[in-house]
Amino acid sequence: MTAVSVLGTGNMGTAIAGVFEKGGNAVQLLGSNDTAVPLSGEIVVLAVPYPAVGGVLAERGGELAGKIVVDITNPLNFETFDSLTVPADSSATAEIQAALPESRVVKAFNTTFAATLASGRVGGQPTTVQIAGDDADAKSRIAEAITAGGLNAIDAGALRRARELEALGFLQITLAAGEKISWTGGFAVQA
Amino acid sequence: MTAVSVLGTGNMGTAIAGVFEKGGNAVQLLGSNDTAVPLSGEIVVLAVPYPAVGGVLAERGGELAGKIVVDITNPLNFETFDSLTVPADSSATAEIQAALPESRVVKAFNTTFAATLASGRVGGQPTTVQIAGDDADAKSRIAEAITAGGLNAIDAGALRRARELEALGFLQITLAAGEKISWTGGFAVQA
Repeated sequence: MTAVSVLGTGNMGTAIAGVFEKGGNAVQLLGSNDTAVPLSGEIVVLAVPYPAVGGVLAERGGELAGKIVVDITNPLNFETFDSLTVPADSSATAEIQAALPESRVVKAFNTTFAATLASGRVGGQPTTVQIAGDDADAKSRIAEAITAGGLNAIDAGALRRARELEALGFLQITLAAGEKISWTGGFAVQA
Repeated sequence: MTAVSVLGTGNMGTAIAGVFEKGGNAVQLLGSNDTAVPLSGEIVVLAVPYPAVGGVLAERGGELAGKIVVDITNPLNFETFDSLTVPADSSATAEIQAALPESRVVKAFNTTFAATLASGRVGGQPTTVQIAGDDADAKSRIAEAITAGGLNAIDAGALRRARELEALGFLQITLAAGEKISWTGGFAVQA
């Protein structure tokens, strides 16, 4: 059992909290009005849109020191749907890790639509959460909490691979927005 | 029925030729010793590793004018498996299009391992070829030839999306090389 705080009560935050609850973890789900509530989780999921991350770090940065911080963002330019807002040779995760040097930051959940977290399926396939980060222990702790919740988890490599995960998340969103795939589908990971 | 030339007789070239043959297209499969053989295809697939593309363009550039050129490459640094060799804000496809201004260049087949082209399945799912490019007619001609061969095809957007397709191909190769997935699996596209 792991203590997990999820910051953000949107579709993704709610679905992620549901996965961890299903796995018997102690879950704290906090909305934007809960800034005075201390974080109980050793794992903290930033389930807010990328433009809101800076505000969360400004409020919670000190509290996040020593914790495992999970970045789920897809930093799309949502006006054009044609680019990411982070530098081409970087990633949202790398930017967040740079801002939180005392936290272990990992990328996860950015390639799984909310519906596939709730159902545990991407079409006919089990949902697989891809995890990238530089701290092996942080990745395996998260993988354990995810698989306890009935999903698959895969170590997608070092923090540098967050860039490719964000490209995958970006592409997946444009395909769904363009009705080439549905929001209950997407890229299934077939081992 | 479409005339297709496939340049490259490796795993990928052979598998791609097989898909088009299955679809009743007229397929010409050429190896590196066939440089004197004129191209019969209106669609030409560059099924060679990215470092070999420059040589093919030097030999065949003039002949490729007016044709649909399919770039299947994943321009990995195969020494490190940690980066691509094209600029972060570009793609192999964009570089090839720039070198072939009189051709219509599209990205395809870089996110499907050879085994999944041959079997038509990614695990339990049908194999889907993702196609990106700026010419809608070129994309639909290729999609038609692919679906005739029994696979799914999906329009993944403009040529700019080749960058994300290459990120996906890169990630998929690192996952297989790291034995997180098998070379018969990968990212299945679930509509």
